[in-house]
Amino acid sequence: MQTISGGVCAPQGFRAGGIRCGIKASSQKRDLALIVSDRPCASAALFTTNRVKAASVLVSQERLASRRCRGVIVNSGNANACTGEAGLETARRMAELAAERLGLRPEEIAVASTGVIGTPLPIAPIAAGMAELAASLRASEEGHDAALEAIMTTDTRKKGGALEVALEGVPIRIGAMVKGSGMIHPNMATMLGFITTDAAVEPEALDQALRRAVRGSFNRVSVDGDTSTNDMILIMANGAAGNPLIQARGARFERFTQALEALCAGLARSMARDGEGASRLMTVGVQGAADEDAAALLAKAVASSSLVKAACFGADANWGRVLCAMGYSGAAFDPAGVSVRFASAAGEVLVCAAGAAVPFSEERAKAILSQEEVEIRIDIARESGPGGSATVWGCDLTYDYVRINGDYRS
Amino acid sequence: MQTISGGVCAPQGFRAGGIRCGIKASSQKRDLALIVSDRPCASAALFTTNRVKAASVLVSQERLASRRCRGVIVNSGNANACTGEAGLETARRMAELAAERLGLRPEEIAVASTGVIGTPLPIAPIAAGMAELAASLRASEEGHDAALEAIMTTDTRKKGGALEVALEGVPIRIGAMVKGSGMIHPNMATMLGFITTDAAVEPEALDQALRRAVRGSFNRVSVDGDTSTNDMILIMANGAAGNPLIQARGARFERFTQALEALCAGLARSMARDGEGASRLMTVGVQGAADEDAAALLAKAVASSSLVKAACFGADANWGRVLCAMGYSGAAFDPAGVSVRFASAAGEVLVCAAGAAVPFSEERAKAILSQEEVEIRIDIARESGPGGSATVWGCDLTYDYVRINGDYRS
Repeated sequence: MQTISGGVCAPQGFRAGGIRCGIKASSQKRDLALIVSDRPCASAALFTTNRVKAASVLVSQERLASRRCRGVIVNSGNANACTGEAGLETARRMAELAAERLGLRPEEIAVASTGVIGTPLPIAPIAAGMAELAASLRASEEGHDAALEAIMTTDTRKKGGALEVALEGVPIRIGAMVKGSGMIHPNMATMLGFITTDAAVEPEALDQALRRAVRGSFNRVSVDGDTSTNDMILIMANGAAGNPLIQARGARFERFTQALEALCAGLARSMARDGEGASRLMTVGVQGAADEDAAALLAKAVASSSLVKAACFGADANWGRVLCAMGYSGAAFDPAGVSVRFASAAGEVLVCAAGAAVPFSEERAKAILSQEEVEIRIDIARESGPGGSATVWGCDLTYDYVRINGDYRS
Repeated sequence: MQTISGGVCAPQGFRAGGIRCGIKASSQKRDLALIVSDRPCASAALFTTNRVKAASVLVSQERLASRRCRGVIVNSGNANACTGEAGLETARRMAELAAERLGLRPEEIAVASTGVIGTPLPIAPIAAGMAELAASLRASEEGHDAALEAIMTTDTRKKGGALEVALEGVPIRIGAMVKGSGMIHPNMATMLGFITTDAAVEPEALDQALRRAVRGSFNRVSVDGDTSTNDMILIMANGAAGNPLIQARGARFERFTQALEALCAGLARSMARDGEGASRLMTVGVQGAADEDAAALLAKAVASSSLVKAACFGADANWGRVLCAMGYSGAAFDPAGVSVRFASAAGEVLVCAAGAAVPFSEERAKAILSQEEVEIRIDIARESGPGGSATVWGCDLTYDYVRINGDYRS
């Protein structure tokens, strides 16, 4: 498995592009992106669990039913959510316009949106920009970059990547881009993510691989506990690599899924690092829980706690808040068996053993917690077996989070 | 029903006091309080649902089993949580010392603590201060005030009150004090609260009245979603008013419970107003939900959303975040039936109808949301019947919240 350049354009047969069409009226930023395969694809997607779903989500759910999407059109600056029938019409029309231009059927194009909720999304600038958007498509890192810029909102960093792995001697590639730095919570689908691969994958296998990869990556991120109306993650596989078909079991499937999960986990970590206003990446690891689900529940409660996040911002070794958050997580565990360590590039310090305080140097703890990337390592003593473990990525709660979200619409 | 002065000392036969014994080493603030009845009481209490429970909670749970507590000793500055066997010993010893001094049995005294988690609570300053604490007891507003000051941590306002109501011609009084401005979340017991009454109440009736009053008051408050290890609310009824005994049913019980709930609701609202760093009280009302539980779930999701709270801070009419929070609340509802209004002393503005945007003046909305107390009024259209309604009190998310919690221990 090896990291390569090119993002979503690294896999053979994919092109991407992005332009400014004017949805973000008050800015000069790009706001319309397109990613497309030059041949038919198998596709799979996961969507927000929010009961209030954006028009783009509803339309893409219809499109994905056939598992044959080979392209996606995405706008930023407007979520097209809570926009009624007119919003659904606009989402469908976006896909139609892109399909017409590319000579494809509308059902082959998925739609995604991100931005402010409740403002009608105008179709006019999208229609007017379509020729320019199609002309911007490139099968190169340049195309990936332009598309990625066009899907970003409050993101401060570009989050994308690609890797190559050999399947029985045939190299296959997977590329991805994600946006998301707010509304991020571990209940899936808390972001926009677009993944391309030139592997030949049977649609059911692609669906299973995506679910497994997301479980250990994007579902293990929390920024502020809000789950968006618009979240969506889409994977398209066009088979251009010519590998033996990946089916839903066996060594080939495992190898593909592991590569996909590795790519997603790296991007999930980047999303937490780029959490709105975040000054620190906070990685919470739990070992010795009853099972993996319990470990994830405990780690998420800690990573999501406003009090833990504020203490992290202050580089304050307030481990009591860690135990407190574990206590209301809903997972069963013995508080008397818990030990907590803070760690970073500056070292590691044990602050709690057997559920109670141990003496430690406050000065040293402060130095450890003052790094840009810190870890909270939680071990739960067990009578037998290793138990379940999980890692969750979060970030600190800062003045900037409040500033960014206090007036996001302006 | 009439508001009176005196707080927990308003009911006959109760005294309260508070001193500085030195638990808050770095401050000159009071940190040890005592409230006691001059005669036996019926008592009832509710405790935190957190799996990690402070020593004071565990000891008070034992004490309350007999429903005969007539006093409570409380310290601030140290939560006595995650302190192991030694912490339990300290909690028991606190009660013993108070009981000895007052000539009571240790089982008659409950214990509560609030402050930092995980630091051993020293018994020495408490033992040394016990004579002064007992001497500070007063059956007056002065005693109430001293005790209330001694239970406060990051609270910026004193939250207490009392009222009088006639039961079949006999006046009875209820007094209360609460502390809490962080770790407040609607899953009960998210605070310290001490309630006194001179009504004669059968213990089972007292327990039921307390549960019902808390359901509509303290369980409808959210500041930051964290549920503390130490939360406790205690009511003691000494019968000094000489009223006909209140039993667990009938008009007498209803009248008493309504008075208790009214007192608690006023204090719950004060707690939200005094949320850590809060600049605005945010009242969220939901009407037309499937039932009361669904209405409470929806209102709590909105009041707890970091994004809604940050928009409230910025006086930004970002109603899409309101619908988004409703969508992930877990309650079933039809998004297309939702209307949202923002209201305050400056007026009311409809911002969303039938789940979609309606034109409104941004300037007017800003003026309405810039008041110190704002309301989010949510109506869900129903085919028949009024459905369930609920009100939840919350507050905005501010720079000060981050500042206060970024370095709470120092």
